[in-house]
Amino acid sequence: MFIKERLFTPGPVPLPPEVIRALGQQIIHHRTPEFTNIFLETRENLQKLLNTKRDVLMLTSSGTGAMESSVVNFFSEGDKVLVINAGKFGERWAKISQTYGLNVIDYKIEWGETYDKDRLDEIVRENKDLKGILVQHSETSTTTLHDVAYLAKVCNSLDDCILVVDGITSVGVYEVYPEEIGIDILVTGSQKALMLPPGLSILYYSEKAEKRLEKSNIPKFYLNVKEESKKQSKGQTAYTPAINLIIALNESLKLMLKEGISNLAKRHEILAEMTREAVKELGLKLLSKSPTNCATGVYAPEGINADDLRKQLLKIGFRVAGGQDHLKGKIFRIAHMGYFDIMDMLQLIAGLEIALNKIGYKVELGKGIKKAQEIANKYI
Amino acid sequence: MFIKERLFTPGPVPLPPEVIRALGQQIIHHRTPEFTNIFLETRENLQKLLNTKRDVLMLTSSGTGAMESSVVNFFSEGDKVLVINAGKFGERWAKISQTYGLNVIDYKIEWGETYDKDRLDEIVRENKDLKGILVQHSETSTTTLHDVAYLAKVCNSLDDCILVVDGITSVGVYEVYPEEIGIDILVTGSQKALMLPPGLSILYYSEKAEKRLEKSNIPKFYLNVKEESKKQSKGQTAYTPAINLIIALNESLKLMLKEGISNLAKRHEILAEMTREAVKELGLKLLSKSPTNCATGVYAPEGINADDLRKQLLKIGFRVAGGQDHLKGKIFRIAHMGYFDIMDMLQLIAGLEIALNKIGYKVELGKGIKKAQEIANKYI
Repeated sequence: MFIKERLFTPGPVPLPPEVIRALGQQIIHHRTPEFTNIFLETRENLQKLLNTKRDVLMLTSSGTGAMESSVVNFFSEGDKVLVINAGKFGERWAKISQTYGLNVIDYKIEWGETYDKDRLDEIVRENKDLKGILVQHSETSTTTLHDVAYLAKVCNSLDDCILVVDGITSVGVYEVYPEEIGIDILVTGSQKALMLPPGLSILYYSEKAEKRLEKSNIPKFYLNVKEESKKQSKGQTAYTPAINLIIALNESLKLMLKEGISNLAKRHEILAEMTREAVKELGLKLLSKSPTNCATGVYAPEGINADDLRKQLLKIGFRVAGGQDHLKGKIFRIAHMGYFDIMDMLQLIAGLEIALNKIGYKVELGKGIKKAQEIANKYI
Repeated sequence: MFIKERLFTPGPVPLPPEVIRALGQQIIHHRTPEFTNIFLETRENLQKLLNTKRDVLMLTSSGTGAMESSVVNFFSEGDKVLVINAGKFGERWAKISQTYGLNVIDYKIEWGETYDKDRLDEIVRENKDLKGILVQHSETSTTTLHDVAYLAKVCNSLDDCILVVDGITSVGVYEVYPEEIGIDILVTGSQKALMLPPGLSILYYSEKAEKRLEKSNIPKFYLNVKEESKKQSKGQTAYTPAINLIIALNESLKLMLKEGISNLAKRHEILAEMTREAVKELGLKLLSKSPTNCATGVYAPEGINADDLRKQLLKIGFRVAGGQDHLKGKIFRIAHMGYFDIMDMLQLIAGLEIALNKIGYKVELGKGIKKAQEIANKYI
């Protein structure tokens, strides 16, 4: 039977038609008033998204490039930093920091959990010379949300500490206002809630972080924030930018701003709640003790390989993500970021019920759906 | 009057319809057999383009990212390298190398000229410990071709020297076969003869260069060649790749391979020859003493500002590039790379004749065209 494939992976996520149209166009030159206008409008829209008037840079790289840029521009060799390492991407902060000679306190946390505030306070008490705390706002590998506001408070209690937040999956899902929260560096990527193909990343930095630019002794060229900042405030870039992604970003930002950031956040909250409650109703267990609204991680039922369940889901039209490293085969992850609505989630849950039955885990058809419908019903 | 804008800038260049179609599609996930198949086919087609069976990596960055990758992966701090610095991009090799602590012999050459073989031999005789020679195959800022085959010979005469070639504008214009020529590292970018939007770069490296990967002591993470190589040979990437650019690259490579690399090279030769002969016929002077077929740089007539001429050209439908740094206002540059044919060049020359007259430099209409037609006529 003819089956459509639907992407429910936590990046890339489906593109809205407006974005597809913007991508499928003849190229324009970047050293033109036409592009500069689009660039500056996009920059302004990014500032609106983050509720800031400060620099928000666009880098031609995937999210990891922006993570690297956060390390090499704002720190120096030997700087002591604390990494909240609660999954695959926390691990990446540690690896990047170690690569560039930072002195890393690697706070390893059980996958699926967030940091412990007492333990954190203890670490900070013993390391008052911390130059930075690096964290994921939403750790997608474990679908876990970390409280960044508390980290900002802790950071601010220290002499010279900046909070570096990987918001790759959280920007556009939560109201991530770095100035209000006290985030010093915030990065995000194009292929998540910004609803674009991968290849563009975004970097915000605070006034406090800006002072580090002059001091940092780590070499950088392609990902040099100072050079980009000089150019981008005038609507240009240091090197040839991903022209068509920037044009498409402007389109997706218009969609997001039209919906409104708080509506956007509310929608994602509802989609995530529907999913969490439905899978629990079906007797399944959530992976995370601090679940994020970006994506929901779920344990496969006892005795069932999560990857077999994913194959079954794919057969009936749904591509969801699996677990990484030691979670492989144990969990599956359903994205909520970006171009999704209530009916998408209901459809996915309907498919999940069928797939679970097919693979030998008997559930009453419609049971999870009903739960999700009840939640959705409150909002429509 | 209604006027279409035509891009004749040396990057970005116009996209073929096949590429636009590939870009304007719903996204697919990169961790799928579907993408892996496309990735491996694209990789194979890149190998065909470069006539090699060795690693050809795709990096999510603009060309400068691949240039940086060439430096940080294949050299160590203090390594002595010779930079052939004959323009804006030669200068970039020097800057990147200096940023990462290489010991740079900066061989500065008058813009518009290529290196002098005797002077080169002399430098090499005095610096037998050279670890690398870095050069542009085609220095686009001055539309100058450098003889890379001679540099390969020189490199090979030394103990442990690798030839690093920026082929960003030359790959797809010339038959650039790195193994035959003896190029150790070759980089190129998407927005030139590969006829794509910017945001993807390509890196080839030789067996000799590969041995450097273990030795290099410069830190790298996002642009780590070893990590990418491990993944890419299996159809994956270390970090999320520019999915839609890779899919579109496969389309443009199919077009290029269908035409045939030698036909491609011949076409560019003809387009460049038509342009050079036409502008000379109009009494104008070429910028370069060693002109490349990628783009043609031309001095504006005596007493005329090249940027005014460019504005006039834009008014009638042609966007050409200007000069950089001290050449600003003195020259203009016409691209031949990629999706151009004989009739495009004739049209551009017709427009140039009109624009020259409009701006006060009297030329006989049709004079340059006739010259270009005569050349074209020999081949059709």
